[in-house]
Amino acid sequence: MDSSWDDLTLTFSHTSMFPFFDIAHYLVSVMAMKHQPGAAAIARKNPVSSWLTAMLHCFGGGILSCILLAEPPLKFLTNHTNVLLASSIWYIIFFCPCDLVSQAYSFLPVQLLAAGMKEVTRTWKIVGGVTHANSYYKNGWIVMIAIGWARGAGGTIVTKFEQLVKGDWKPGGDEWLKMSHLFLYLGDYEYCSNEFGSTDVFRSASKLTMLGSVIFTFQHTEHLAISKHSLMFFYTIFLVTAKITMMMTETSSVTLGPFEDTLSRMLFGWQKQFSWCETKLSSNGTGSSASKPVPDASQNVKKKHNKKTE
Amino acid sequence: MDSSWDDLTLTFSHTSMFPFFDIAHYLVSVMAMKHQPGAAAIARKNPVSSWLTAMLHCFGGGILSCILLAEPPLKFLTNHTNVLLASSIWYIIFFCPCDLVSQAYSFLPVQLLAAGMKEVTRTWKIVGGVTHANSYYKNGWIVMIAIGWARGAGGTIVTKFEQLVKGDWKPGGDEWLKMSHLFLYLGDYEYCSNEFGSTDVFRSASKLTMLGSVIFTFQHTEHLAISKHSLMFFYTIFLVTAKITMMMTETSSVTLGPFEDTLSRMLFGWQKQFSWCETKLSSNGTGSSASKPVPDASQNVKKKHNKKTE
Amino acid sequence: MDSSWDDLTLTFSHTSMFPFFDIAHYLVSVMAMKHQPGAAAIARKNPVSSWLTAMLHCFGGGILSCILLAEPPLKFLTNHTNVLLASSIWYIIFFCPCDLVSQAYSFLPVQLLAAGMKEVTRTWKIVGGVTHANSYYKNGWIVMIAIGWARGAGGTIVTKFEQLVKGDWKPGGDEWLKMSHLFLYLGDYEYCSNEFGSTDVFRSASKLTMLGSVIFTFQHTEHLAISKHSLMFFYTIFLVTAKITMMMTETSSVTLGPFEDTLSRMLFGWQKQFSWCETKLSSNGTGSSASKPVPDASQNVKKKHNKKTE
Repeated sequence: MDSSWDDLTLTFSHTSMFPFFDIAHYLVSVMAMKHQPGAAAIARKNPVSSWLTAMLHCFGGGILSCILLAEPPLKFLTNHTNVLLASSIWYIIFFCPCDLVSQAYSFLPVQLLAAGMKEVTRTWKIVGGVTHANSYYKNGWIVMIAIGWARGAGGTIVTKFEQLVKGDWKPGGDEWLKMSHLFLYLGDYEYCSNEFGSTDVFRSASKLTMLGSVIFTFQHTEHLAISKHSLMFFYTIFLVTAKITMMMTETSSVTLGPFEDTLSRMLFGWQKQFSWCETKLSSNGTGSSASKPVPDASQNVKKKHNKKTE
Repeated sequence: MDSSWDDLTLTFSHTSMFPFFDIAHYLVSVMAMKHQPGAAAIARKNPVSSWLTAMLHCFGGGILSCILLAEPPLKFLTNHTNVLLASSIWYIIFFCPCDLVSQAYSFLPVQLLAAGMKEVTRTWKIVGGVTHANSYYKNGWIVMIAIGWARGAGGTIVTKFEQLVKGDWKPGGDEWLKMSHLFLYLGDYEYCSNEFGSTDVFRSASKLTMLGSVIFTFQHTEHLAISKHSLMFFYTIFLVTAKITMMMTETSSVTLGPFEDTLSRMLFGWQKQFSWCETKLSSNGTGSSASKPVPDASQNVKKKHNKKTE
Repeated sequence: MDSSWDDLTLTFSHTSMFPFFDIAHYLVSVMAMKHQPGAAAIARKNPVSSWLTAMLHCFGGGILSCILLAEPPLKFLTNHTNVLLASSIWYIIFFCPCDLVSQAYSFLPVQLLAAGMKEVTRTWKIVGGVTHANSYYKNGWIVMIAIGWARGAGGTIVTKFEQLVKGDWKPGGDEWLKMSHLFLYLGDYEYCSNEFGSTDVFRSASKLTMLGSVIFTFQHTEHLAISKHSLMFFYTIFLVTAKITMMMTETSSVTLGPFEDTLSRMLFGWQKQFSWCETKLSSNGTGSSASKPVPDASQNVKKKHNKKTE
């Protein structure tokens, strides 16, 4: 690619997140938190708790990656500027008279702009996470992928756990199945709360982050012959486009669908041809997952075992 | 202040917590744990589990601050003397024949003395936490406040989580609201269990710790023109007086009440004058917090959004 | 002991766990995970979540000891060989056509061999944990015991918490009592799921690990006049024998039973003679643990207190 294009991507990759993109990220996160039921009431009753939740929403990815790397989870508090910025956004959103900010945010174009800018911060976070993990473990590429994933999309799991602890969100019924998928839900939490889409949106957004983490890890370990800045450019374009598309048309299968189906069919689908002997297992598995409590299931496992050993 | 007074406060600030004040702290904590329903039965059935719970009650603040600073949570185990001291107190309280200790402790003067001495240890813990955090992050004053708070009053959150995991204490109904306030409950757990007061006592005790953490942080960053030892003296006097008052008269509004009201009215109350447009929001918030599950709430959020965009 | 015997034990203590014993450990752990109800269905629906659970089962002890020592919990991911080995075993077990592996594993001799080899890895883990903790805290013998215990048998607590978060396993009813014993359940999780034994098996297996951790700690601090390699030899023989015996005869009281009874009678039983004054306490404790919710219990505590103070 010619040098002018190279300059463009290089300049783009040097864009500072600080004032505007961070503001967009905090805005989207805190609005997502406010759209949870009762959030406004809690903010009135107990501002400190609400502020802490807002911090979890805003800095969750950093906190999670700090925990995974055994760094102080409070590290984000040392960045006073960003903490004060997020706090003021939380204050404006929750305590602005007549709820002006929410009403302004409820217009689709504003949401599209904010969401797009938030996606840009996601790319920066993934790259930062991968580089940071590499400074810990040379060639620890699994760790690099995990940290990039955690920092890029980890706000969700932290807030999910926070809700779990609050008892606000109780996994139960088929919820626990969703919860068991939590590790795949490191996705766009805000689209959980204001219901822009179903859990597919989570999963696809989370998978996009995962894909980015993998790509940037390979680029960092020089398995991809492309410069980091142009990769950042392309990936950001891809992310923003996918997010905007997901928000306009509330479907999520547009992204990665075929690729995933092929992969999962290659990896986990080829046993389907042995359908004549899969039936027993699958029925057993699904049945016990649906209804049976642990003792029953383990008993019939035991029965099966005894049958075998007789 | 003249030098004799200075000497007094200096001597006071050099008091060693080790034998007697630590004993009072362990006594109050383990008695609080014993007053939980079923604690005595568990101690008979499973001493090891009971002992671990007692350690959590006694060293919870240190454990929490270790976690927040990414230090080994087991660090407190290296202080063999204190661990053995706490263990022997646990043993005496739970396995003393005829339950003599509990009966002795159930006299109010004993409780007042023990609680007063425990408050003294709280001051020492706050100062230690602030200094320790400052050794990590120079001028990281938010972290210093947080660590001082956690170490000074963090026994509760650890034991709360331990109960949550046990399933002994399930947040549900309006409990989850209380739980959402957990971050404010870093308070006097013992008054939760033996019901000396309501959640107000928590909150006020926790707020006293928070206030102390803020004060000592400002003193440490030289924003307060007062020597640390005299500040420790005054704050300890204040803490002990407040605690004794709270225990004698089972009210808690004596402390910080007016100050808080003013502050919260200044910060979060001035929108009340816009009552004509606050109604919709607050009713919506409270209603959904009370009863509606997540999907409903997010649906009516979505509806609202669609109305807006139409 | 003569030198040939010494050579034997020395050679044994230098056995590498890597290919075969690790495979046995992963096999037993993943089979235990597969025997949970619904595990097979989850693996089909969401392979990534299932893979993560499998990693938790396989490397739980290491993760727990990393958390307790404030090391990165992701550290195990840097050992690429073992992660790939465990992943391939997970893949074979869950996606082998016709479920061949499970059927092969359901024969008792295979289970006995795998379980025996797993016990060998347990010894190595305990020794590694004790040595590792000693490199942190010289003479911190309590920490050494705890880390040896955690690494030797910590897979359970991690998976228990993972189930708790999933909501798959809800402590409730007398479950919460069991959960309160969780710290004693750092035992053989696989015998939880395929029901080879009752909770006694847990406790005894966990106590065997605890005993080993204590023994190796004392050996490491030179309180035991026996060389480490012969101690490893004897302890491994003991572990394997105990495990095989437990699996053949589904009883668990064979091990440590008398020793424990004596100890607990010495420590916690001698108050029984004061039965005339124990009755009130124990009845009160058991009663409230069985049924009464927190407020009632604390109220009658308060009542008792008021009676006292009147």
